[in-house]
Amino acid sequence: MSPKVRRQFSPVQFTNVTINDVFWTKRIKVNREQTLPFEYEQCKTTGRIDQFKPGFVPKGTQFTHMFNDSDVHKWLEAASYSLATHPDPKLKATVDEVVDLIVSAQQPDGYLHSFFTFVQPEMRWKNLRDNHELYTAGHLFEAAVAHFMATGERKLIDAACRFADHIDTMFGSEEGKKPGYCGHQEIELALVKLYSATGNEKYLKLSKFFIDERGKQPYYFDIEARERGEDPKDYWAKTYEYCQCHIPVREQDRVVGHAVRALYMYSGMADLAGEYGDEPLLNACNKLWDNVCLKNMYITGGIGPSAKNEGFTFDYDLPNESAYAETCASIALFLWNHRLLQLDCDSRYADVMERTIYNGIISGVSLDGRKFFYVNPLASVGDVQRQEWFACSCCPPNVARILASLGQYVYSTSDTDAVVHLYVQGTGKMNVAGQEITLTQTTEYPWDGNVRVGIDVPQPTKFGLRLRIPGWCKGATLKVNGEAVDLSGKIEKGYARIEREWKSGDSVELDLPMPVERVYSHPEVRQDMRHVALQRGPVVFCLEEADNDDSLFKVMLPKDAQLNASFQKDLLDGVVTITGEAVVVDQSGWEGQLYRTEPVKTKPYKFTAIPYFAWANRKIGKMVVWIPEA
Amino acid sequence: MSPKVRRQFSPVQFTNVTINDVFWTKRIKVNREQTLPFEYEQCKTTGRIDQFKPGFVPKGTQFTHMFNDSDVHKWLEAASYSLATHPDPKLKATVDEVVDLIVSAQQPDGYLHSFFTFVQPEMRWKNLRDNHELYTAGHLFEAAVAHFMATGERKLIDAACRFADHIDTMFGSEEGKKPGYCGHQEIELALVKLYSATGNEKYLKLSKFFIDERGKQPYYFDIEARERGEDPKDYWAKTYEYCQCHIPVREQDRVVGHAVRALYMYSGMADLAGEYGDEPLLNACNKLWDNVCLKNMYITGGIGPSAKNEGFTFDYDLPNESAYAETCASIALFLWNHRLLQLDCDSRYADVMERTIYNGIISGVSLDGRKFFYVNPLASVGDVQRQEWFACSCCPPNVARILASLGQYVYSTSDTDAVVHLYVQGTGKMNVAGQEITLTQTTEYPWDGNVRVGIDVPQPTKFGLRLRIPGWCKGATLKVNGEAVDLSGKIEKGYARIEREWKSGDSVELDLPMPVERVYSHPEVRQDMRHVALQRGPVVFCLEEADNDDSLFKVMLPKDAQLNASFQKDLLDGVVTITGEAVVVDQSGWEGQLYRTEPVKTKPYKFTAIPYFAWANRKIGKMVVWIPEA
Repeated sequence: MSPKVRRQFSPVQFTNVTINDVFWTKRIKVNREQTLPFEYEQCKTTGRIDQFKPGFVPKGTQFTHMFNDSDVHKWLEAASYSLATHPDPKLKATVDEVVDLIVSAQQPDGYLHSFFTFVQPEMRWKNLRDNHELYTAGHLFEAAVAHFMATGERKLIDAACRFADHIDTMFGSEEGKKPGYCGHQEIELALVKLYSATGNEKYLKLSKFFIDERGKQPYYFDIEARERGEDPKDYWAKTYEYCQCHIPVREQDRVVGHAVRALYMYSGMADLAGEYGDEPLLNACNKLWDNVCLKNMYITGGIGPSAKNEGFTFDYDLPNESAYAETCASIALFLWNHRLLQLDCDSRYADVMERTIYNGIISGVSLDGRKFFYVNPLASVGDVQRQEWFACSCCPPNVARILASLGQYVYSTSDTDAVVHLYVQGTGKMNVAGQEITLTQTTEYPWDGNVRVGIDVPQPTKFGLRLRIPGWCKGATLKVNGEAVDLSGKIEKGYARIEREWKSGDSVELDLPMPVERVYSHPEVRQDMRHVALQRGPVVFCLEEADNDDSLFKVMLPKDAQLNASFQKDLLDGVVTITGEAVVVDQSGWEGQLYRTEPVKTKPYKFTAIPYFAWANRKIGKMVVWIPEA
Repeated sequence: MSPKVRRQFSPVQFTNVTINDVFWTKRIKVNREQTLPFEYEQCKTTGRIDQFKPGFVPKGTQFTHMFNDSDVHKWLEAASYSLATHPDPKLKATVDEVVDLIVSAQQPDGYLHSFFTFVQPEMRWKNLRDNHELYTAGHLFEAAVAHFMATGERKLIDAACRFADHIDTMFGSEEGKKPGYCGHQEIELALVKLYSATGNEKYLKLSKFFIDERGKQPYYFDIEARERGEDPKDYWAKTYEYCQCHIPVREQDRVVGHAVRALYMYSGMADLAGEYGDEPLLNACNKLWDNVCLKNMYITGGIGPSAKNEGFTFDYDLPNESAYAETCASIALFLWNHRLLQLDCDSRYADVMERTIYNGIISGVSLDGRKFFYVNPLASVGDVQRQEWFACSCCPPNVARILASLGQYVYSTSDTDAVVHLYVQGTGKMNVAGQEITLTQTTEYPWDGNVRVGIDVPQPTKFGLRLRIPGWCKGATLKVNGEAVDLSGKIEKGYARIEREWKSGDSVELDLPMPVERVYSHPEVRQDMRHVALQRGPVVFCLEEADNDDSLFKVMLPKDAQLNASFQKDLLDGVVTITGEAVVVDQSGWEGQLYRTEPVKTKPYKFTAIPYFAWANRKIGKMVVWIPEA
């Protein structure tokens, strides 16, 4: 199959998007000024930087994971994005130093992975199942592409290409190459990026090989295990569902195993479906989308409920306290949906992106940018705290790279249309219908649902402007130059599409009513039975002990409770809170009893809910998203 | 402190109790005819019997646990009890053979533990923390006492005494002895039994030493670990709370760590408190009782919610699906309460015994006596099944020994009183006020709350007859010889006490109204918030998929639902079921949605509840105890 591009939409590059937004600007600033330097320091003090030095000897437990290189790669990717929008000589100097170090560790044959160069060279390419070598390579490629785009410098991307060339000599269906693929997917999507940046079709084909080969029998991981003298049955994860190679990729229709592995793979599949017009691959993505997003996704956009496999269990199993919902998994879900959105401009994909980015992704980093969640539970009895770093520290730099490149996800274009997916105040410059147009959003989203989109065109130009009507919104209205437009017949796959000859000074005003909504889970989600969550716009709320008291698990929300939303500028860097009157169990009369036949009584309880993403930024305490409904 | 018996009540030996009961007779028969032979076969085929043969070489994984001997000891204890009430030449021959084998493995110095004799002799007494040597000894002592009582033969008890004598030379506060104690408590209560059977006070003192020494600093387990060249900080369980030696025993007031370890220890403490009149020990028991039974006990009498430590987490943490609630832990809770009951004839102890024995203990064995639960969850999504045996198979023979000696727990006597704790049809012979009296219970308990107690005395005798008014019962009434007795002023610590001159032919009729009760959990039990459990008499009910359908997790019980109890003689060997009309979520209208703002609708649902103990005897499926209350 030769490349036959199916993708009709392309993201507007974040370098063409400015963000000047009530919600995002401060978080991106914190990301740039706090998170990036802090994460570099963490990489430094944990030996992750020095490990690239030839002859480096690991000390203590810093090599807790053989894929520590990838944390540095992801940090470098994030730093490069930041340099692209916010030049910073000091950060640039650090980036240069890190690039030099990484490149210095490259071997003559192109191999570039510190652990299997300096610590266990004898294991190179011997255990693709467990050793994350191709995964780490993938993050190197993503960093290299970002670095090249940000700086125009070729040093890192050339090294990445040499490594990719080496990998291409090692793996493939040709005689003499190994028919292997990675136990932790990532390289598939990264090779597509490397292809896009370099135009070298070899990388695209290699990505396709990895996707096509996966799950074929006899299993490569079986063969490889036997070559190591191991019994494949002794695989610690017990099933190849763990890394989604139990069956060929195109036959997969149920999300299984490790969440990040799964969703990175699906992202690669969407990339390849777009590049090759590969319908079976797209069909698999669509089936998997239904399974993930309609049966296995938390209201926060978290996925993968179980700590045991860092992943999936069975449909509708969404425990709250023990939710794993790894930050990286939400990011992967975001990335996958962004790719699908370019193939099919359907708001359901952007809805998932919005759900993750306002909830389960940014919950992964504290407001001060220096503490992180790896796991994002939806309830806590008060034993959960953000950490400064992790032994496996994939999540912190992953959030950093998303925030540093957030503009990437706001707009798309096709030949004829400009599309607004996310509502973020600022501008987007893009080419549509042969013209460079600029869209300027004015909004206080997500706190307010009014969005004005100003159009600037060099000359009057006919094109379609698509504005997403979020799935959470009922009764959206739209005006063009102050005049109401009847949206009936104008909604295409969840986007309002206005096609006309636009001229500079035109504006569209979209009004998205944003009342507090009570949200219910599908009845098969047994953990949320008779519970309600509060959502306003895309933001999911929670009750946190800091605003209430420690009786959170005894609070119930009557069906008719009045709910009041108001912006609190001094709280948690400025958030909307929801207050109202609930009820709490009256515990009097329970002394000396654990069980009794008299029903529980309640008394009034004033509560304050805050956005979920902002929890765990104050004193440690209880938290609940799903509130029992009385 | 020298012995100063505080115990005022003594259990009537089970050899003086006959059981001819609608509920228990068939289970004891199954235990005798099915479980005992089946468990012996399991011990045999897994190498647990042969391991006592000198020179025995373990094959494969049969030595999964170094304390496998204890399964044989517990089986032997159960078999001995059975022989005492139901002579059986075939079983006797097997018992003889096993006794011979065990005794043949005894070393010249008295040591008797196959693993540390034949497999790892160099580790003998080197790791009390982990190696269960004293635990296994304890089970040997219990078996030996049972065997001696059943057969009058001294072979095993003499071997047990030789081993206990050896242990006494090894451990103690005297110069040259190790100040050690076991990482898994059990020997403490077993030594008291051995003392009771032999009169040798040395064993009582050794038990007291183990209890007194526990938790003293510097920690024995620290010292021992250093002697093995290990860092005590590397202790796999991370905290000495796991085995309740974090602080001295008398200072403990909160149940922590491994449940069976804790409750066996508490049983030993109660024994010693009784023997020595040791008030601080009894006070500790009382504080711990409040903590266990009022904050950490499932409605089924299960304890220890967490699989992680096979034990306790924090107060009121009682998850249902993931409940560990090991069968052995409920048995230990039963044994502890039975001991406390002899010190203080308070029905709260017998209430806990009754709760465990009708629910969380017998749920541990299938109705056919050949499949077992180690873990007893209170809800299941359909992935739980009884097993024929376990790598660590402590629970199956533990249930067997309780069933084989059930009569032990029915009656107590003091100098002046005869006490009926449990309502079981049959007779109890006992000495009270210098006379041998016989009480004859006629009842269909637990299916019916009417209990007639007939009195037989050699001559008219004045004594107090105490009959427990169960904690679940409201409105108990009592008649003596057909005449109603006003119970006000006659209830002592939960027992109706009738003191009079009794003559043969007298009878007392106790009526315990037994409607279906809706039971609620303390509001701090967040997992049961707004849920209701159904209980009738002492029996806790559940909904099982076999009687309903797979929508169990979507069923809610309206507050005003009619609940009908009826005996079903052909179901599950004859049980009362509860039927009624509940509601179930109407799932129509949810297609393509995981979250929505429209509330859930319900439709009528006819349900059937069965006794919890009887679940998982048919096809595998869902089960819930706590039902959402609508």
